[in-house]
Amino acid sequence: MGYAMNAWYMAAWSSEVGEGPLARRLLDIPVVLFRRDDGSVVALHDRCPHRFAPLHMGRFADGQVECAYHGLRFDSAGACVHNPAGETIPPQAKVRTFPVHERHHILWIWMGEAALADPDRIADLSCIPEDPGECANIGNHLHVRANYLLEIDNLMDLSHVNYLHRGTLGNDSMRGHKVNVHEENGAIHADLWMPGTIAPIYSALFGRPCDQWTNIVWMAPSAMRLDYGAVPPGAPAVQQPEDVAVHILTPETERTTHYFYGTCGVFGPEQRELAEMIRTAQTAAFVTEDNPMIEAVDERMEGAELWSLRPAILSSDVASVRVRREIEKMIRRENRSESAAEGNVESAVA
Amino acid sequence: MGYAMNAWYMAAWSSEVGEGPLARRLLDIPVVLFRRDDGSVVALHDRCPHRFAPLHMGRFADGQVECAYHGLRFDSAGACVHNPAGETIPPQAKVRTFPVHERHHILWIWMGEAALADPDRIADLSCIPEDPGECANIGNHLHVRANYLLEIDNLMDLSHVNYLHRGTLGNDSMRGHKVNVHEENGAIHADLWMPGTIAPIYSALFGRPCDQWTNIVWMAPSAMRLDYGAVPPGAPAVQQPEDVAVHILTPETERTTHYFYGTCGVFGPEQRELAEMIRTAQTAAFVTEDNPMIEAVDERMEGAELWSLRPAILSSDVASVRVRREIEKMIRRENRSESAAEGNVESAVA
Amino acid sequence: MGYAMNAWYMAAWSSEVGEGPLARRLLDIPVVLFRRDDGSVVALHDRCPHRFAPLHMGRFADGQVECAYHGLRFDSAGACVHNPAGETIPPQAKVRTFPVHERHHILWIWMGEAALADPDRIADLSCIPEDPGECANIGNHLHVRANYLLEIDNLMDLSHVNYLHRGTLGNDSMRGHKVNVHEENGAIHADLWMPGTIAPIYSALFGRPCDQWTNIVWMAPSAMRLDYGAVPPGAPAVQQPEDVAVHILTPETERTTHYFYGTCGVFGPEQRELAEMIRTAQTAAFVTEDNPMIEAVDERMEGAELWSLRPAILSSDVASVRVRREIEKMIRRENRSESAAEGNVESAVA
Repeated sequence: MGYAMNAWYMAAWSSEVGEGPLARRLLDIPVVLFRRDDGSVVALHDRCPHRFAPLHMGRFADGQVECAYHGLRFDSAGACVHNPAGETIPPQAKVRTFPVHERHHILWIWMGEAALADPDRIADLSCIPEDPGECANIGNHLHVRANYLLEIDNLMDLSHVNYLHRGTLGNDSMRGHKVNVHEENGAIHADLWMPGTIAPIYSALFGRPCDQWTNIVWMAPSAMRLDYGAVPPGAPAVQQPEDVAVHILTPETERTTHYFYGTCGVFGPEQRELAEMIRTAQTAAFVTEDNPMIEAVDERMEGAELWSLRPAILSSDVASVRVRREIEKMIRRENRSESAAEGNVESAVA
Repeated sequence: MGYAMNAWYMAAWSSEVGEGPLARRLLDIPVVLFRRDDGSVVALHDRCPHRFAPLHMGRFADGQVECAYHGLRFDSAGACVHNPAGETIPPQAKVRTFPVHERHHILWIWMGEAALADPDRIADLSCIPEDPGECANIGNHLHVRANYLLEIDNLMDLSHVNYLHRGTLGNDSMRGHKVNVHEENGAIHADLWMPGTIAPIYSALFGRPCDQWTNIVWMAPSAMRLDYGAVPPGAPAVQQPEDVAVHILTPETERTTHYFYGTCGVFGPEQRELAEMIRTAQTAAFVTEDNPMIEAVDERMEGAELWSLRPAILSSDVASVRVRREIEKMIRRENRSESAAEGNVESAVA
Repeated sequence: MGYAMNAWYMAAWSSEVGEGPLARRLLDIPVVLFRRDDGSVVALHDRCPHRFAPLHMGRFADGQVECAYHGLRFDSAGACVHNPAGETIPPQAKVRTFPVHERHHILWIWMGEAALADPDRIADLSCIPEDPGECANIGNHLHVRANYLLEIDNLMDLSHVNYLHRGTLGNDSMRGHKVNVHEENGAIHADLWMPGTIAPIYSALFGRPCDQWTNIVWMAPSAMRLDYGAVPPGAPAVQQPEDVAVHILTPETERTTHYFYGTCGVFGPEQRELAEMIRTAQTAAFVTEDNPMIEAVDERMEGAELWSLRPAILSSDVASVRVRREIEKMIRRENRSESAAEGNVESAVA
């Protein structure tokens, strides 16, 4: 089915690109990210146009990369600035670049038509504090052997928490509450209010009755923010910043995914233990519960598109189905405008 | 080429499905087997119709399975009996079931049209005693990286014993005897009588001249019984029950196979050593001699259908060729009746 | 794109086929090589025509092979000389043979039309001495996960030495010299003369200014000889035989390659250390520098044909492009003559 190309995907955490380059496959395209001397980040197709050596194996200096194989040098705009075999530089000696924007400690990349790369369209993750503190719980990354939409499905239907995570993140008392799905400025919200339920193991109110919530919002193409919390029955539902989680997914290939995650509290040295506890619990849930299930689902689907398998749709699927429909719309819109562009060319020619 | 679907295949040994479920791919379909409270066995498509989670990861109780992902519950007929997201159950929320019949300590499964699943068509393995004793040599299972027909070919042409198993199961003196192939009630027999030959290493008569036999019979679709023995020259050829072996093959995929095997004697505690010796010798032959060869053949064939490679056919191939022809006939018959059914639909519509 | 079939490829070093057979996939075909009693080498398709067992698993004696599976015996012309199942031998019981010629301590194989297998067309590797001494540096073999043309590209453009091997085989002073490409009797030469440059680490003149050269010649389909050397500035450029290297490549599959290499000096016991030093340096360069790069390039190309990716062509590519064009011409010529042959048949029939 392909990907929505005209969108900002998370390429990496800012901290992943420091002195050295970072090589990563994104939307089936090998990309190398590196910093210029001024700290700004460059993304190039990770393939020399001469003999197709991966550029990340090269030497990086002064905002340029020298290919490790035959020494061609490219600047941060992808132009060849040195041909070791002679003076003239053939026109094919050009590397594709991708717009990159650094925001919220994240490097966002635009793999589609560069002219459309408007930073205003970056998902709003302003929940991540500018200065998250030295023990912050961001910067986490997992590799998953499954299509990225299955990860979105998983997050947009949190009814799974009380089955797949029974005893850790969820329990029987939290089941059966209706999700409230609504759209706001293109973002899709799925809010779950669970009054008078038992707090799960990770909560400070563990084992006691309380009012709980999990509110998740999807922002195109694949970033999610999850607010969760628990308060004594009837108390005001105040959101704690350390209980705001981000889950950001980027397709590596059709059947593998980069999973970035973290929480939004500001953690000073004295909160190191708390931050570590949250990170450990989050990671444990993904590694031992979510991802094995999602990878098993991907394996069962054998590469088929979801709708072709005619899934039974439940009311708890409403949010995930809406997100899928939004992404499908983005892809259709791109294909249409491509055909239109081709049509224009054809009319012009005819 | 596909499989004969309207046939009973061995899914597992009875002993493999006890308290917990058993997940196994059969004829390219993932299946989960489990027992109801009354001990009867249920086989379901191992894939939840909601979001395609493997059902074997779920919770099994009261003859029902609760999906581990979102909690849908299915009964042993595959009907959804609980939708955690609400009262109504969508019509797609149905799991395919497969008829299972337990006989001869074996779970037989029918992957084709359920209405045709007549237990009378189960291969006659009544040679396996009802009570094989506490040290019985049944229950063995190997996984082979080869098409199952190559395993049948191997067993239906026992001339290989005196080459591939030279020095263990066979020897030079046992070569060159004509096989007598005949059909009886759809079963194909290949009998080999080897008078005045030297008994092989596993025989009690090892190294001495004797009259030997190996009589194998194939029963559709892929079960074989092998009677073998050796007696002093001229003595009556009495068959010992512990020298009756069963070999039952079930395709896992086009190029991998479940290999089930054992022998039919009744082994009490005092025969533990004998039973173990037979099991060890059998397994050693498969693991070190047969299966490496069969897997090498499968690799050499690179997924091609046997006839497309125009094999040289020898007189020793008669039985294996007849079995292949029988299986091809079963498949053709199924395809014809499918087309006929479709034709009826078309005439009805027209 | 396929391979040039009517050509002599290196199947193995002579020393690789001794008492026992050697099984090796060449141009996507499994081959078994073995010696007759007179020492001459036979190459057979490594697949019994009966049930497709690999013949290399069989028993070799008297210039014949007995299949390990069912005992068919074949002579060195591929004819079946014994059918254990009876007297008549079916016409399909024939194994394809491939012409083999032993020369320069190498076994050359012809995988195309046997009638055209003229030993005069074997690449001239007479640089390998008849008696290379007991410590000779020949007989080396590596397995590479890349298309063989990428290895040829690598060798025919030695400008890579001063980038990929900077600090080991090359250095900055050796860069930017023009390569002289010329053809002689179908062989393509790429000569590089580097006067007044700094000798690299492996040279006896290490670190000193000198006149250096690397002259490489490609001989169809995939053998290369590399003469290299360094002398004090202005001294006569005398070629040392131990500084003549051979690099011979044979496709295993479209994306894997057999890499044979060595040097041509005569090394007596007292030169053991020198020979070992050269072998170690050569192997280290291939294993740690060339092959990782070439495998990375192959991965980046994802199986695409080079030209379809529209590479930027530099003047340093001249030799490698000419070699690729030669090989493409060989393949086109074969396809044409096949079509012509088919055309003749068709006219004859019509």
